[in-house]
Amino acid sequence: MYSFEYLKSFVINLFLKNNFSEQDAEIISDVLLAAELRGISTHGLMRISEYINLLEKGRIKAQPEIKIIHETSSTALVDGDSGLGMIVGKFAMNLALKKSDSVGTGWVAVRNSNHFGIAGYYSMMALKSDKIGIAMTNANPLVAPTFSKEALLGTNPIAVAIPAGLEYPFVADFATSPVSRGRLDVMNMNNEKAPFGYVQDENGNPSDDSGILSKGGAILPLGGDREHGSHKGYCLSSIVDIFSAVLSGANFGPFVVPSLDYISQKKDNYKGKGIGHFFGSMRIDAFQSAEDFKRNMDLWIQSFKQAKPVDGQKEVIIPGEPERESEIKKMKEGIEISESVLRKLNLIAEKFDLKKI
Amino acid sequence: MYSFEYLKSFVINLFLKNNFSEQDAEIISDVLLAAELRGISTHGLMRISEYINLLEKGRIKAQPEIKIIHETSSTALVDGDSGLGMIVGKFAMNLALKKSDSVGTGWVAVRNSNHFGIAGYYSMMALKSDKIGIAMTNANPLVAPTFSKEALLGTNPIAVAIPAGLEYPFVADFATSPVSRGRLDVMNMNNEKAPFGYVQDENGNPSDDSGILSKGGAILPLGGDREHGSHKGYCLSSIVDIFSAVLSGANFGPFVVPSLDYISQKKDNYKGKGIGHFFGSMRIDAFQSAEDFKRNMDLWIQSFKQAKPVDGQKEVIIPGEPERESEIKKMKEGIEISESVLRKLNLIAEKFDLKKI
Repeated sequence: MYSFEYLKSFVINLFLKNNFSEQDAEIISDVLLAAELRGISTHGLMRISEYINLLEKGRIKAQPEIKIIHETSSTALVDGDSGLGMIVGKFAMNLALKKSDSVGTGWVAVRNSNHFGIAGYYSMMALKSDKIGIAMTNANPLVAPTFSKEALLGTNPIAVAIPAGLEYPFVADFATSPVSRGRLDVMNMNNEKAPFGYVQDENGNPSDDSGILSKGGAILPLGGDREHGSHKGYCLSSIVDIFSAVLSGANFGPFVVPSLDYISQKKDNYKGKGIGHFFGSMRIDAFQSAEDFKRNMDLWIQSFKQAKPVDGQKEVIIPGEPERESEIKKMKEGIEISESVLRKLNLIAEKFDLKKI
Repeated sequence: MYSFEYLKSFVINLFLKNNFSEQDAEIISDVLLAAELRGISTHGLMRISEYINLLEKGRIKAQPEIKIIHETSSTALVDGDSGLGMIVGKFAMNLALKKSDSVGTGWVAVRNSNHFGIAGYYSMMALKSDKIGIAMTNANPLVAPTFSKEALLGTNPIAVAIPAGLEYPFVADFATSPVSRGRLDVMNMNNEKAPFGYVQDENGNPSDDSGILSKGGAILPLGGDREHGSHKGYCLSSIVDIFSAVLSGANFGPFVVPSLDYISQKKDNYKGKGIGHFFGSMRIDAFQSAEDFKRNMDLWIQSFKQAKPVDGQKEVIIPGEPERESEIKKMKEGIEISESVLRKLNLIAEKFDLKKI
């Protein structure tokens, strides 16, 4: 178990050694540690080796010049100049928040970015000023649309954070597939089978092989099969891809350049404008009084928590609740880092002449 | 088989007889016939008897005074004054489109409305002026959140319409559950079993009874069970409920007053502000050149259609494609109306002294 502060300063020092500014190293560590605290370790320190790999290949710039390419009073298009997603993402979400201050809502499409960690982080930036925050991103093509043998879409997560009054906020943050790539990686690392309904083999047949992605297989869309609505998961993932990447001019669908060694690129990289994100901010009081809204959100949350649970379950879970509880617990008791992640991080520490974890 | 024009004039005359204005009767018939043409008959003429029932109960007003309660340059809150959803919906979507003309995007939350037919209709209103259209609505509480015995959410559909260039537009329009209430009703009417993964019984156990909704059962969220991501379907449906109803001040979650006789009301109606919708419009050129965007949407669509299909399937289907093909076919060959719907409509025709279909 490691304390939040201890791991945070490790991450900051590592990115400082890689030519990131102090401010940017702070942002990166903040987002990665938020994932660890919230129990989403698949988007935490585990990802650092991937980032360092892309930095060394020149695919991520340590000192990007992030630019606003075009804007209206409620929108903007941002070019991330191959920066790491956390830096680009925080810039863009702040811009969306600012626009909503003046005209009620703000919407920012981003191109030329990279993996940004947990989408929930950006959506939650809206909460303190009584706004609804929205964040989404496209990603490595790993998900096969309904009826396709080929993976054309990412696990493309959506996060929506909504303020409440006395209750804790509603924070939904989910991949638009039954399972995230990170969770499959962990299952595969532990030699576990995947439940049927997560992946298909290279011919589109059902599979329970958690390592199928490196063998031409693909993740299924949310819904699993056509009869159970996989076309709806496919729609949802497509919407995230189009908002994040077609609207911004980033690589979309099968053209996304994989950031993982085990995925071969499906199509020629047609433009090279990184991956894309999409951020939104809506001021509650652009619709109605924030006080009334938050009182009703409390009622919404309470009426869901008071619903009769199925046998064996304590209650209906409000989106964001398990993550918040994990955050409180880990802040107090410390963060566990798996052996394999520790090994990788310590190799990196050695390489950059840093004290090992 | 009946021609589009024949059915349209039947619907117009019926609503004229019920004190709707000519303009409004035209809008209602337009939305209902769009559903029939697009092959979504569960949202077409089949719904008319429900609307007439609610009109007679005084829950729908034929001549509502639709009002803008609050607005900013990019947002508005609209009160539908218990109008039928099509009339209120079209008013609100037009307002969203207008706002996006001036500030890039427009977002309208609506309360005090009723069933609005197919969400896709409103989203598609954005296409002709190179905008992305978004429409969603909450509905009768029929869906049980993950771990709940009780149904607290509607099948809460989302529609997103995105323009393309030479290709036809992308139009996703889907309930956030594996099955819509309408399709279950049809299965039940035909004495068909539902596939497992659609519904649960009153104790939250798996069921294949398509008539379970009238016996205390519930529809499952998209994903089916917790292991396969039902919590993501639950999140999605919740977001639609909160955007449509908490943001607007409509009845939300379990407080929605059912429009169906077979559903008992779960909670006291706390406010009586009907159901809620949420509409959005984003001008493509508020982000980048509409020409470039549409060229890339063509490439997006083509690369999905060219993906290798699984055995037994012709190709990957682009959202909106089957509905568009149905529209062309039915416009030419006519629209089929089921015996049971015909019977109900002819009873209504008789009552209002109209020529039977």
